[in-house]
Amino acid sequence: MLPFRETSLAIFGPGLLGGSLLLDARELGCRQLRVWARREESLTAVRARGLADFASTDARAVADGADLLVLCVPVGGMKSLAEQIVTASPAPGALVTDVGSVKAAVLAGAGAVCAAAGIPFIGSHPMAGAETAGLEAARRQLYQGAACILTPEPDTAPEALARLEAFWQALGCRTALMDAARHDALVARISHLPHLAAVAATLASFQPDPAMAQFAAGGLRDTTRVASGPPGMWREILLENRSALLPALADLHRTTGELLEILQEADEERLLAVLTTAQQLRATRY
Amino acid sequence: MLPFRETSLAIFGPGLLGGSLLLDARELGCRQLRVWARREESLTAVRARGLADFASTDARAVADGADLLVLCVPVGGMKSLAEQIVTASPAPGALVTDVGSVKAAVLAGAGAVCAAAGIPFIGSHPMAGAETAGLEAARRQLYQGAACILTPEPDTAPEALARLEAFWQALGCRTALMDAARHDALVARISHLPHLAAVAATLASFQPDPAMAQFAAGGLRDTTRVASGPPGMWREILLENRSALLPALADLHRTTGELLEILQEADEERLLAVLTTAQQLRATRY
Repeated sequence: MLPFRETSLAIFGPGLLGGSLLLDARELGCRQLRVWARREESLTAVRARGLADFASTDARAVADGADLLVLCVPVGGMKSLAEQIVTASPAPGALVTDVGSVKAAVLAGAGAVCAAAGIPFIGSHPMAGAETAGLEAARRQLYQGAACILTPEPDTAPEALARLEAFWQALGCRTALMDAARHDALVARISHLPHLAAVAATLASFQPDPAMAQFAAGGLRDTTRVASGPPGMWREILLENRSALLPALADLHRTTGELLEILQEADEERLLAVLTTAQQLRATRY
Repeated sequence: MLPFRETSLAIFGPGLLGGSLLLDARELGCRQLRVWARREESLTAVRARGLADFASTDARAVADGADLLVLCVPVGGMKSLAEQIVTASPAPGALVTDVGSVKAAVLAGAGAVCAAAGIPFIGSHPMAGAETAGLEAARRQLYQGAACILTPEPDTAPEALARLEAFWQALGCRTALMDAARHDALVARISHLPHLAAVAATLASFQPDPAMAQFAAGGLRDTTRVASGPPGMWREILLENRSALLPALADLHRTTGELLEILQEADEERLLAVLTTAQQLRATRY
């Protein structure tokens, strides 16, 4: 199952996720590391850390001869990369995947481009850190213990899927399979909705008098933590997953409305019921 | 300023907050520790840890001769304790305070009872852990570095206030003074509202399919953390601070509505603006 020493791995976008892949792949004895970046300076940093056998800003050149091609760029940039890759000559049996945090949009874009060219594409979402903190934040074993969701389609070849699962498992991931729509609904609930809840809590808690926050203890800090994430990146993620996120956000808005109604009516019984439900739901995981 | 070795300290309710006070007071060389608990078993545990020179379920007996009396029971039980204390014979110049997380209700209840009997009462809110985890969770230096808000009234004697500030500072608190209404508005924003935001996020994120949470990373965990707090205790806190919390919760509900509208309209510009505002507000503290 994809012995690393026989694999030519091509990473497109050596940021936190791509760079960490390179670090682990080097350690695992990958036959060849090929790296594409948009900017030459990024490649200089990659070369300086000994993480590329071939590095170029020419995506076609990087794709040539590669066995496994991993798109680690923002979701909005994946389709045009795929369009370049399919004009190159990857190795026979080459497989393309990505690390984007939404999947339906990726399959409809980069996935469709690859499929039309006869190159297998399977979406991946390793859930290992959301910040696009760049190569300097990359580290070994970033993927160790993380969940990685793969989103095969009905016509995905079982051998290709098995190879991709083996790849992520070699990096330490727990893999799971589901279709892209279910994946997107899932991340809407467990990642994108908590982000918006944190943003709403930050605005409502801080805005009347930001100086008040000096008195806050751990509750405010933790509830709002993710609202410190990069606004530009989160705008992109939230809009890309808009259709799956809308019903979740409508639930959140309805829930804050229910809480408001309960407090307006000082309804002790209903208040205890929702607090208890929340405590019990959270106990299923934490 | 209240040298501990000359002070007879009476703690009413040896739970996390009261028990931690006893541990520090013993270490600081308090002249006498007097402890009241509702149940005899609680007093047995207090005696076993050497934290009481006198312990009783009779609040009057515990109040007799005490210099500083600290109510460490739930806010709903403070007024009836005060009614017993004022029939006792505390030391001349005795001062009563509390550790409740809301202040207007305490001043209107226990505070008014003490004032009517000529015993000075000043509200305190040491912000050091919200769980009523009992004596077994009590520990030394719980208060070290915590903010402690005191809520003097226009007729509070400056000497009494100075004594109380010195007490909390001796325990390591940073003290701040404000009136009870401002205190309650503050904790509504920095503690009670984040709690409800975490509850709403938990319900909206987990309810459709609790099994999904197995895939969650740190964002869901932190945003919802405080929703695991004891429902009974939080019901009491939220209802006690209801009038200050209502406008804050209305803001949260309005904000989730704005986010929903932005996402429905896929309004890129407004989305970036709110994400940026939240990031900047949070950066004022964290």
